[in-house]
Amino acid sequence: AKDLHHSCQWGSGIRWGNDPTDTGMQRLALSEEDKSVRDWFIQTMKDLKCEITVDAMGNIFAVRRGRRKDVPATFIGSHLDTQPTGGRYDGILGVLSGVETLKRIDELGLETEGGVGVVNWTNEEGARFPVSMIASGVWAECIPLSKAHNLKEVPTVASLPTAASAPETMKSALEKINYLGDVPCSYRTTPMAAHFELHIEQGPHLISAGQRVGVVTAVQAYRWFRLKIIGRDTHTGTTAFEHRADALYAFAQMMVRAREVAAGKGCLASVGIIEVAPGSVNTVPGTVSFSLDIRGPETALVAEVEKELRSDFDKIAAAEGAGIGKPCRVEWTLDFDSPAVKFHDDCIDCVEQSAHAVVADAPVADTKSLVRHMMSGAGHDSVFTSKRIPTSMIFVPCKDGLSHHPEEFSSADDCATGASVILQAVVRYDQK
Amino acid sequence: AKDLHHSCQWGSGIRWGNDPTDTGMQRLALSEEDKSVRDWFIQTMKDLKCEITVDAMGNIFAVRRGRRKDVPATFIGSHLDTQPTGGRYDGILGVLSGVETLKRIDELGLETEGGVGVVNWTNEEGARFPVSMIASGVWAECIPLSKAHNLKEVPTVASLPTAASAPETMKSALEKINYLGDVPCSYRTTPMAAHFELHIEQGPHLISAGQRVGVVTAVQAYRWFRLKIIGRDTHTGTTAFEHRADALYAFAQMMVRAREVAAGKGCLASVGIIEVAPGSVNTVPGTVSFSLDIRGPETALVAEVEKELRSDFDKIAAAEGAGIGKPCRVEWTLDFDSPAVKFHDDCIDCVEQSAHAVVADAPVADTKSLVRHMMSGAGHDSVFTSKRIPTSMIFVPCKDGLSHHPEEFSSADDCATGASVILQAVVRYDQK
Ligand SMILES: NC(=O)NCCC(=O)O
Ligand SMILES: NC(=O)NCCC(=O)O
Repeated sequence: AKDLHHSCQWGSGIRWGNDPTDTGMQRLALSEEDKSVRDWFIQTMKDLKCEITVDAMGNIFAVRRGRRKDVPATFIGSHLDTQPTGGRYDGILGVLSGVETLKRIDELGLETEGGVGVVNWTNEEGARFPVSMIASGVWAECIPLSKAHNLKEVPTVASLPTAASAPETMKSALEKINYLGDVPCSYRTTPMAAHFELHIEQGPHLISAGQRVGVVTAVQAYRWFRLKIIGRDTHTGTTAFEHRADALYAFAQMMVRAREVAAGKGCLASVGIIEVAPGSVNTVPGTVSFSLDIRGPETALVAEVEKELRSDFDKIAAAEGAGIGKPCRVEWTLDFDSPAVKFHDDCIDCVEQSAHAVVADAPVADTKSLVRHMMSGAGHDSVFTSKRIPTSMIFVPCKDGLSHHPEEFSSADDCATGASVILQAVVRYDQK
Repeated sequence: AKDLHHSCQWGSGIRWGNDPTDTGMQRLALSEEDKSVRDWFIQTMKDLKCEITVDAMGNIFAVRRGRRKDVPATFIGSHLDTQPTGGRYDGILGVLSGVETLKRIDELGLETEGGVGVVNWTNEEGARFPVSMIASGVWAECIPLSKAHNLKEVPTVASLPTAASAPETMKSALEKINYLGDVPCSYRTTPMAAHFELHIEQGPHLISAGQRVGVVTAVQAYRWFRLKIIGRDTHTGTTAFEHRADALYAFAQMMVRAREVAAGKGCLASVGIIEVAPGSVNTVPGTVSFSLDIRGPETALVAEVEKELRSDFDKIAAAEGAGIGKPCRVEWTLDFDSPAVKFHDDCIDCVEQSAHAVVADAPVADTKSLVRHMMSGAGHDSVFTSKRIPTSMIFVPCKDGLSHHPEEFSSADDCATGASVILQAVVRYDQK
């Protein structure tokens, strides 16, 4: 926990309380702040006698050798980048629990069969470069390296001052902070025996049920789109509503409809980014671009919501501007597609046994009830590692279920519980 | 008409056809392009033996002396700045008709009683600095100079590359292009006998009725607001709809409601600018800022729409986030208030007589029907001059009623008709 907050000195964000650690985080992927924490991470792992590999996506792998050299290491992984107005736990807890695990193993003088590794994945958030988990996606050979290298940053509150010049690509940003490694980014080059990830839940289930550990068995499906509505610029003062093809008015109706449709199917639909042009008080905007994030417990449900929205958005667009025979039109681009995922039974078993062991001496009658199986609402790098190697995750509660917010918080106790579970899970897996 | 397009070489914008003049304009107030056309304007007027005055708002007054030196000149005025994706006629036609008028008076060797002047008002559009008609407003002593000087630019498609550094204020922008004059900006210092303004209608009435000239008797009321919705940043993938205080979802409902309420009262309500924070695909936006432009034929109607929207927006905000006891809230700032205006009977008479004289030889039975009395939907510098001196306006038709769009268009014939009407109106007024 000390190290957790220590690592948060680089990019510490919006303050919400008086304690030194009562701040959020603003550490966009591949920013100067990200470079600083990466440098710290590498130094710390070298001090623990780890071997360091940096690949072509800037992923950092640190491995402590085990007894056998012929098998790949079992990894603990997550990410050190944050949202523009993020918290101190999302991703950071996962990497730091890896650092703690290696410290603990070192202190105990434990000799593992295979090696134990910690990986920091690049740009998990998808906040600066708008594809989440992109670097584990390249590692899993699910996303082409060239697509990832060419991906452009988007403007956020954190990046506005600099993003104004030509936006960086992932490749130029990697070069800028000197983290474009010369090792190929692939599960073939840096193989793993398994991947475990500890994360705050980012949702309200554990905290509201008073439970301590989530054994994550699955991740819900999601798709990210960029949409563009094309209408017609015109004067706000002289153009009757029936003579408008107001792209922003069309957007407003679409967003209202998106919630309706998603809610009807037990899914989510959200807009996080919107830009209008030309951007003048007295000009009806002719162009609106926005992001759309659709999620649901099943891949097919997300597809259904998408299908319904494609049809509804077309209708909304067609109606706005029909009066002048120049209706709005809407274009969709799929940026990212993450089908629902089921984690590996072996990993789930290791986590479950470890969780029960860790909570066993809790002062309640039925300690079993402190652990629950659950699905993750958010995506994680474990989604991509699970495509290639046995993977699973551990959740711990967070205050109010709040995440992607400066006040995101998990107690030191909960963080420690999670770290103990992941340590045990890794050792269990190693000994299988 | 030649000069009109000549003056459009500085800041010519989006191309929509093959002719050299088939482009829009992108000449934001006090930009480099604006400086170039100002320099050209001053040189052209000096060549016509005019005396030039530049005041503390960068307004440029050019006066050709008349027989009597004890009376102020009668002015033709409008503006050379444009919207970020504007056309070649809005404002430009008005100033250029002034230039043409003085050329014609010079050619005819006409000696007027008082002088005849042409004025180019600064930042009429309110596009770069978001208060329209601000410089005529200062001249009329309706807007304090300090408020205008301190007004900051907003980001538009045209200004994004530069606006990223500290935004310019009107004063710093005036200094930058060397148009901060040392003459006070006031109707007392640069008095006028009257102000006439020729403008494209920017709406569909003349063109759809096949009429040639609008005698503008009034201008509708409008108010500009900046609104801010404060909700809560949170994760898009893990936060159920009932746990959100989604500022952008609140916005979407507000915009839909705004059109409903405005339409119900025969008014307009429009949003031209919107910005969200933090601006990340997978973070529900906690903050949204947007512009709101409410217009209507009567000052009281605009006030009614505002009142109803204040109450409705509060309700929408209160509902979004109620589930977590942290509802959104919405803050209003009034940026600009322009009550409905009636123009001066003497000026209206001069315009009306001139209009009928100009269309008298049109090849139709009832030439009277080619002229109509009308209200302006858009604001113009004439709104502010009318507070201090006799004022009125002339409209000519524009294609599809389209304005604040690159394809804005008025035929050479219509422009020439308007220029003839304003020449005659000025001479008539001078001889009263
Ligand atoms: N855990 C997390 O916030 N990941 C970012 C990807 C997502 O939006 O789910
Ligand atoms: N004529 C014109 O477009 N003026 C700008 C002020 C307004 O928005 O009405």
